[in-house]
Formats: sequence, C-alpha cells, structure tokens
Amino acid sequence: MGDEIITSLQNPRIKNLVKLRNRGPRDEQRVFLVEGFRAIQRALERQVRLREVYFCREWFLGENEDALLAAAATAGAELIELGRAAFAKVAYRDRPEGLLAVADQWRLSPADLKLSATPLLLVVEAIEKPGNLGTILRSADAAGVEAVIVCDPVTDLFNPNVVRSSTGVLFAVPVAIGTSEEVIAFLRAHGVRMVATTPGADLLIYECPLTGAVALVMGSEQFGLSAAWLGACDEQVRIPMAGQADSLNVAMATMVTLFEAVRQRRLRGAGDPS
Amino acid sequence: MGDEIITSLQNPRIKNLVKLRNRGPRDEQRVFLVEGFRAIQRALERQVRLREVYFCREWFLGENEDALLAAAATAGAELIELGRAAFAKVAYRDRPEGLLAVADQWRLSPADLKLSATPLLLVVEAIEKPGNLGTILRSADAAGVEAVIVCDPVTDLFNPNVVRSSTGVLFAVPVAIGTSEEVIAFLRAHGVRMVATTPGADLLIYECPLTGAVALVMGSEQFGLSAAWLGACDEQVRIPMAGQADSLNVAMATMVTLFEAVRQRRLRGAGDPS
Repeated sequence: MGDEIITSLQNPRIKNLVKLRNRGPRDEQRVFLVEGFRAIQRALERQVRLREVYFCREWFLGENEDALLAAAATAGAELIELGRAAFAKVAYRDRPEGLLAVADQWRLSPADLKLSATPLLLVVEAIEKPGNLGTILRSADAAGVEAVIVCDPVTDLFNPNVVRSSTGVLFAVPVAIGTSEEVIAFLRAHGVRMVATTPGADLLIYECPLTGAVALVMGSEQFGLSAAWLGACDEQVRIPMAGQADSLNVAMATMVTLFEAVRQRRLRGAGDPS
Repeated sequence: MGDEIITSLQNPRIKNLVKLRNRGPRDEQRVFLVEGFRAIQRALERQVRLREVYFCREWFLGENEDALLAAAATAGAELIELGRAAFAKVAYRDRPEGLLAVADQWRLSPADLKLSATPLLLVVEAIEKPGNLGTILRSADAAGVEAVIVCDPVTDLFNPNVVRSSTGVLFAVPVAIGTSEEVIAFLRAHGVRMVATTPGADLLIYECPLTGAVALVMGSEQFGLSAAWLGACDEQVRIPMAGQADSLNVAMATMVTLFEAVRQRRLRGAGDPS
C-alpha cells in the first residue's frame, strides 16, 4: 500500500489534512501541520516527532527532498506520495514545495521548565494574531530568552500560521502554556521579577533594570495587559514613542523590549561583574 | 452624472482601478490607491491630494463614512458611488470597508529634505517585500527619525501593500528616493555619519555612538548591503544574535537598531549635555 500514489481528493487522508488547519481536529488528534522543506528539516533537527510526511515530486523545488524524506523515514515517519491535485488541495502555503508533515503536538507547562538562576523569560498574554505570535517567537530566539510563556492563549501555538511565521523557532525555543493565575504564581515562587511593558507606564524601558531573573510581560493586540497582570508585575515600563500611537504593534514592542534586556545583560556580563 | 452608481464591471473607471494595483499604470498616471477608512482619513489629515474617492454604502462598517466623504469632497476629491459587486472587484483588502481613494503620488529627492543640525536618518537599500518596507516605515515613525531614504527601490513606495502595512506612516514621515551613489554623496556633503548594520561587523550596535548627525543604513532581505554602501559607511555594526541566524529579518533588525539610537540620543539629551 505504501507504494500507491493518492490522487483522489475524496481520500480520507486528504480530507483529514484539510481538517487539520482547524484547531478542533488538531487538538483532538494531538497533531499539527509542518509544511515546506526548511520547516520539516528544522523539525527533524529538533527531534519533533513526525507521524507522516506527504510529498509530491511534481511540486519539488529541487532542494534534496529525497534526502529529507529518507531522514524522516529513519526518524519513524510514514511517507505518503500524493498526486499533483491532491497535494495542491492539502498545501496551505502560497507556493507549495511538495512537502507536508503531520507532527505530534507537545505540551509544556511552566512547571516543566528548567530555569537557570537568572533567566530572561518572555511572557505574552492572549496574543490574537498567529503572525504576531510567530514573529514574537523569532525575536525571543534572536534575543536568547530561556523560555517563552504563553498565557491564556487565544491563537493556539500549533496554528499553521504560527508554525510558518516562526520559521522553525517553535521547535527550538521552549514554549510553556498556562493560565495567567498559574504563571504569576510560578514566577513569584521562582523569584522572577515581572516587568510589564504598557504604554501608560512612567518609567522608560531604558530606566528599569532588566538584569537578573526577569520576565518581560506583553499584552494582547487589542486590549494590552489585563488588570491581573498589571497588578502582579513588579514594574511597569514603556517604550518611548514618537509619531502615531499605533506605529508599534505588539510584535515590534516585544522586540525592542527584548533587545534592551539583551543590551543591559551584556553590559552587566562584560563590564560589571557584580 | 455624479449621482449615477457604477455597477458595470466593464466600466473604464473600474478597469483602471484594478490596473492601478500594478506599478506601470500607477507611475504613468502618477497616482496610487488608498483603501479603507483609517488610511483615507490619515491621507486627508496629511494633505495627501485625493483625486477620487470610490465608495459603496453596502460595505460600510459604520465609522462616520459620510463625514469622511464630505471632508474628501471639501479637499477637492471627486466622489463616485459603486455597486456592491463593482466595489468588491476594485477592493484589494480582505475585508473591504467600502472606501477606496485614488491619490496623487509625490517624489522627494534627498536634496528636498530639510535636515536639522543633528538628524537621525534611516537609509534602506533595495528592500524587496512591500510588507517589510511598510513595517520599516512604522518603526521609523515610532523612533522619530527625521526622514527615511529609500535607495535603488525594488518594491515601490506606492505599492498597495506598502501603503497598507505602513498604516498611514507613508503620509507622515518624509521619504526620499535616490540612487545609492546620489544618497552617499548627499550624506557626505551634509556631514552625516553613515552606520551600516551588517551581520559581519565586529562592533555591536551598543558599542557605536549613534548620536549627532547619523544615518542608519540597512540592506536588502536577500543580499544585505551592497559593497558600495559597506565601503562608504563610517562604521559597521551588528546586532547580537542568539538562536537561528535568520530569526531577525530586515524589518526587525531595523527596529532594534533604531531604538538603540533612540536610547543613546535620549540619554545624551537628558543626562549628558555635551
């Protein structure tokens, strides 16, 4: 059976792949979609468990796809060949590359995180747009955070657009999920200072020490941080803003705040051993 | 004639609006498209000349559209009503709001910029993706740069996706266009220090003074900065990067660099009068 090419758009596997674009079926089956050569390669490198890899040679761009398929098979994935139309139906990217994997979901709770003595953490509350969550994961990776904690998720971590816009970072950075209540208790218990970025703060990000054990806390696109978080945080800081009030979205604000922490921590590491 | 509603998809005006998604017809007619309530409102606030505003009441979301149309008419725009299907054809946004304007293009060359004694400028070379250029304009606005200079443009400034992703900043921040040669000569003549951000630099952005008259120079997505720019710049700096090499794209790198300049310049303004 493994040598048959699926061409029917009515094939149950094809129908299921389309279903997996939605959260309900994804969560029920505890899987998610990984599309494209580089994303699948990064998933394999990070030991993400791929259950199935669907491929269609007609869509290949010629980047060593066969070697990748062989590596996936070695790692335990079932390989399934699709016809051109069948692949076009299951692909969700604009420019399909003929590779689509079904991977096992995982769940990390804050308690699963192994923290260093002075971690830099990023906490995001109720982010709505998958593209923003993906970009936030990328900046967390670039800034070298120890973990990202997603509170009260509105968009789920395994949304195909989070996977895509994170460019594989989803597989690289530990991302824990919890309720705000649970995460606040966890950070308090671990002596992590919580610093909220919010436009209403007096203190500028440059004026607030972001060294030591610290969690930078960012709110949702529409509503910012909840009262619970604003009340729980040890400090509130803002980014200096010229121009239009809405020029910085949450992903951009996260990046600026993360890199201010990077600056302060490098400075402290290099010039001030205390 | 002004009271007629255009319903035919074959109407020459409808056909032309669709054409204006492409650069050729835009540049030939020296106009561009502005879609949606807020973008048109911001264009009016910034005295962008709107030639025509197309509207369709059936798509209105109910945000004072009539007042906006009246303001556009007062500013000299012709108002043209479209039927539902005709508007759907000309709208390029996912969720049409029943408002689409045709505005006059403008051209600023570097020589048109009126610079202060110590300007912060942003120079971008050959950016390819409209979404990146729009995001870069937003961060330039948030950081309060005096002007953005776009060199050897690949994507044009009046691309509908630049207009959209800049959320109106295109109308607010002076954006000059020139060849790299011309812009380098202009900056030299004005005594503006040129600082290139490039992954190969030794110096970190935090270690390089970004105060005084300075231009931050960013390269294209695929190729980075050209040899001409790397050779012309007074300094080369890099952003410290943990994680995957591609976690920061050019828009994100621009934001981090701009806000490091903001930090240094505020510090100098506040704590160090020299």
